[in-house]
Amino acid sequence: MKKLINNPESVLADALTGIEAAHPSLRVDHVNRIIYRRDPAQRGKVALISGGGSGHEPLHGGFVGFGMLDAACAGEVFTSPTPDQMQEATQVVDGGAGVLHIVKNYTGDVMNFEMAAELASVESGIKVESVVTNDDVAVQDSTWTAGRRGVGVTVLLEKIVGAAAEEGQDLASVAALARKVNDSARSMGMALTSCTVPAAGKPTFDLPEDEMEMGVGIHGEPGRHRVPLASAAEIAEQLVDPILADLDFTGAPAIVMLNGMGGTPLIELYVAYGEVHKILAKAGVTVARSLVGNYITSLDMAGCSVTVLRADDEALRLWDAPVNTTGLRWGI
Amino acid sequence: MKKLINNPESVLADALTGIEAAHPSLRVDHVNRIIYRRDPAQRGKVALISGGGSGHEPLHGGFVGFGMLDAACAGEVFTSPTPDQMQEATQVVDGGAGVLHIVKNYTGDVMNFEMAAELASVESGIKVESVVTNDDVAVQDSTWTAGRRGVGVTVLLEKIVGAAAEEGQDLASVAALARKVNDSARSMGMALTSCTVPAAGKPTFDLPEDEMEMGVGIHGEPGRHRVPLASAAEIAEQLVDPILADLDFTGAPAIVMLNGMGGTPLIELYVAYGEVHKILAKAGVTVARSLVGNYITSLDMAGCSVTVLRADDEALRLWDAPVNTTGLRWGI
Repeated sequence: MKKLINNPESVLADALTGIEAAHPSLRVDHVNRIIYRRDPAQRGKVALISGGGSGHEPLHGGFVGFGMLDAACAGEVFTSPTPDQMQEATQVVDGGAGVLHIVKNYTGDVMNFEMAAELASVESGIKVESVVTNDDVAVQDSTWTAGRRGVGVTVLLEKIVGAAAEEGQDLASVAALARKVNDSARSMGMALTSCTVPAAGKPTFDLPEDEMEMGVGIHGEPGRHRVPLASAAEIAEQLVDPILADLDFTGAPAIVMLNGMGGTPLIELYVAYGEVHKILAKAGVTVARSLVGNYITSLDMAGCSVTVLRADDEALRLWDAPVNTTGLRWGI
Repeated sequence: MKKLINNPESVLADALTGIEAAHPSLRVDHVNRIIYRRDPAQRGKVALISGGGSGHEPLHGGFVGFGMLDAACAGEVFTSPTPDQMQEATQVVDGGAGVLHIVKNYTGDVMNFEMAAELASVESGIKVESVVTNDDVAVQDSTWTAGRRGVGVTVLLEKIVGAAAEEGQDLASVAALARKVNDSARSMGMALTSCTVPAAGKPTFDLPEDEMEMGVGIHGEPGRHRVPLASAAEIAEQLVDPILADLDFTGAPAIVMLNGMGGTPLIELYVAYGEVHKILAKAGVTVARSLVGNYITSLDMAGCSVTVLRADDEALRLWDAPVNTTGLRWGI
């Protein structure tokens, strides 16, 4: 295993030290492993928190800041944060208008966020709403989930719903919007190589030199099938077809993300995006906004995922609203 | 070779198609392989162009836009663009105030940009100034260079000098500032793994599982020495020490970039940045601004580089000025 780390046990602690040193706009609670905004949001704003296992950077810590999250809880690599972390974050960010928990559908995350919501509500009287993302069309149930996995839409949701919260929308509206965004998006990913979890020291799975894993999960969970290595055009088709088969994306503007899994260089992501764009155009989908890069990653995995969101004018307006995080920044 | 491409011959053409589809703010000349701003800069502004072999994305095309470059010429992977491309770009972006060529010190790039400058001057009467970056302290001469290689400072220079050009500074001032920025910065990189050039189909070099290459070039050129795999803290020391030995960075604010080579995930880059920051603090260097991520890459190489720029109030002011490119964006 060749990694730029000190030792497998301290990866998260060391990364949090680096994040704090690099970004004066963020505060890090090293004990509870929470990344906050340096400038807390104003009282009366609905607060957004998310979190999950580490190894998916910039998700979620990179999306803390004006226009997106108020805090992110970081678990160990590919391991859910604890209810304590989430409860602590909920209490610190609550400005009296309640807190939205944004939870990717993985059993550990869902359970722990549920417990945290209950604790925050019972012990501190904080209103908490939760949205569980489940946009991955690859598999119905998987290694770590009942139901579909929550993946790329989480990034788009944090942006759109973050803008709504910043405008002063109340908790019920913000939660309803979050559910609508999740329901309107579908994703599918693929891997050319496995990732390697530092503590494991070896690749999560074996993938022969001439095969790829279609529908892979963001922790290297098995997808739909192993298929022979194919061209970017064929890969794009294998990713986009199941997405289009699952939801009608015509007749509305779409927001499209071509996401890198962490180990694939940007030049290849652009090759893939070009193919995805062509397929969507041919299918009558109007791409109104797009995002190409590493946004929800799987450590050093080579591969990519596609997320398509059926938007409307309101979603586009919120998408375009100013955002100032270390992972997404515009209009500021 | 596992890559998200259609075939090794069409990587650049396909990536340019993807870039154009993804970014309505850019225009792509597919014949000449030039990326321009969709909205040309106003007449009277000094224009900035750069370029080089592809495979270093987001450099340079990702830095085309308000506050940085006016155009970028893309060569084949790790191959210099031609004088024709550079001449064409120079003519298109010239707004009457002259054009600055930003050239990384690689023999092919330097020769071709020189020829392009002469052609543009003789045939079209355009005033051209050039700056050749050579910030890499690793080796004096290397596979593709006489003198030091130009690496990370190129990113910082394009930002700072781009802001000066946007303010209306004249060609002589902009060129002088560019040379000052280059002279004030030092870089050093390392590789955990080789990169694989698509057309070659196999890794550029062999690196045993328990070794790393210190001082590696951005095309996988040999560095200073192979050493045993070490911790992020030791790697940071081996990168920062030669930088600090080469120039005095105390007594002035520093801009620091911890750059990923393309195949290293963000969580590891933050681990490395944390160590770099500690070493700089201990050495009395005041980090005023920092940048952590993939900015000048080497395809899928795992590894990182450190760039330190001795700045001043004026450089910080220009650094903080609004920028709106696909690779760097703030204040807009």
